[in-house]
Amino acid sequence: MAIFSLPFEVRDYELDFQGIVNNSVYLNYLEHTRHKFMYERGIDMTGLHNRGIDLVVTRIEMDYKLSLRSRDQFKVTVEVYPEGNLRIVFSQQIIRLPDEKLILTAKTTGVCLRNGKPARPGDVPELQKFGI
Amino acid sequence: MAIFSLPFEVRDYELDFQGIVNNSVYLNYLEHTRHKFMYERGIDMTGLHNRGIDLVVTRIEMDYKLSLRSRDQFKVTVEVYPEGNLRIVFSQQIIRLPDEKLILTAKTTGVCLRNGKPARPGDVPELQKFGI
Amino acid sequence: MAIFSLPFEVRDYELDFQGIVNNSVYLNYLEHTRHKFMYERGIDMTGLHNRGIDLVVTRIEMDYKLSLRSRDQFKVTVEVYPEGNLRIVFSQQIIRLPDEKLILTAKTTGVCLRNGKPARPGDVPELQKFGI
Amino acid sequence: MAIFSLPFEVRDYELDFQGIVNNSVYLNYLEHTRHKFMYERGIDMTGLHNRGIDLVVTRIEMDYKLSLRSRDQFKVTVEVYPEGNLRIVFSQQIIRLPDEKLILTAKTTGVCLRNGKPARPGDVPELQKFGI
Repeated sequence: MAIFSLPFEVRDYELDFQGIVNNSVYLNYLEHTRHKFMYERGIDMTGLHNRGIDLVVTRIEMDYKLSLRSRDQFKVTVEVYPEGNLRIVFSQQIIRLPDEKLILTAKTTGVCLRNGKPARPGDVPELQKFGI
Repeated sequence: MAIFSLPFEVRDYELDFQGIVNNSVYLNYLEHTRHKFMYERGIDMTGLHNRGIDLVVTRIEMDYKLSLRSRDQFKVTVEVYPEGNLRIVFSQQIIRLPDEKLILTAKTTGVCLRNGKPARPGDVPELQKFGI
Repeated sequence: MAIFSLPFEVRDYELDFQGIVNNSVYLNYLEHTRHKFMYERGIDMTGLHNRGIDLVVTRIEMDYKLSLRSRDQFKVTVEVYPEGNLRIVFSQQIIRLPDEKLILTAKTTGVCLRNGKPARPGDVPELQKFGI
Repeated sequence: MAIFSLPFEVRDYELDFQGIVNNSVYLNYLEHTRHKFMYERGIDMTGLHNRGIDLVVTRIEMDYKLSLRSRDQFKVTVEVYPEGNLRIVFSQQIIRLPDEKLILTAKTTGVCLRNGKPARPGDVPELQKFGI
């Protein structure tokens, strides 16, 4: 199991008419953190795509605890672990700073496609860098 | 239980570098359909907000079955039902047209806040139009 | 000169904390209308990209006259004409419905790249469908 | 004349099907930098809005020189100056790092509204912090 964390700050264009970050924007924060986590391990999502390999999300669960507002500082964490032979799970949290209040928890499940067909992550050399 | 359906078409700015609709965009489709469904019942989300009433999402579950691509036609459905005294659940599907392939299922759970404090949806006259 | 028009409705996720459509969203409306206009002429932007041909925007000018708000209906128009040998200009308007108030005017200038190098639009068979 | 600069990194969800940052996303970068610039001078856009004061964009000009791609580092600069009695102009550049290549130049013109009516920026105490 690996842990990674990335700092963020709310940008005003991410707010909706209620003055809080729109629900869909949290998926952007979560995805960017997963990609940065992978890049740090040498897994380049856009490069993999050009070689016919895509990590595709099959399920997302998100629990919203508190809303983020204009200029809030926060961090997004990610842990990764396998689920069965085919699935990879990313467990993530969004934590406001500096008060460490939990904003959101998320579980994202993905599968690996090679040329459009399911592949075991363990059989894809580029993904062995996950260490799972 | 109420049923509502709204037609959409993929717009190219919604595609990501993989040429498929980005995961976060589906939340926009789902939210827009919920709002249109509520407006049709006389529930105006931006008007409610100006009177101190907000429907806030507490949990989202999404299962991605297939990807949408450039120019795909699809519809988004919504059903609504109560869960306990405080929660409202929106059950939604995204269905590609004309082949009726299931693209995504989603369950969104929300609570009602009046001046920032939880309120029973049944006690908020504006929400009785849900008929739940 | 060709004219094309597409109807839209404001979606609440496009509003910002001021309760009006965020400035950047107008570029999405404009782009979607240009792409639909081209598709109708048999010019498929994502298909062209896969054959090494990209239409790339080099300049955008937008004049904001009025703001769009929740649930506003509007249309986006587009005309296209050449500018010199290399540039294509899209002249667009956003017009609120049904009162026909002018919301925004925009001029978008683009060039054609074939395998990353500038090409005369007139030398690209796929673009001759513009009729310019 | 004041100068301010903010560092950014491209996030993969900002890429379009061409693998480059979508045109509309540059407006987000520019707006966020303007807001951070104003916050640093004690001008809180969301706070002003709650007191009936809005800075509204009336014109945007952007010249796209080069495209940003996955993981590119860049900075956005802003200078501000008055234009006549009513208008404020923000002159901005996007510069890729570390090679200092110019990606985009932009000129954004805005006016100040107090309770929906035009006001001279010089008559709005909260805006005198611009020092223009």
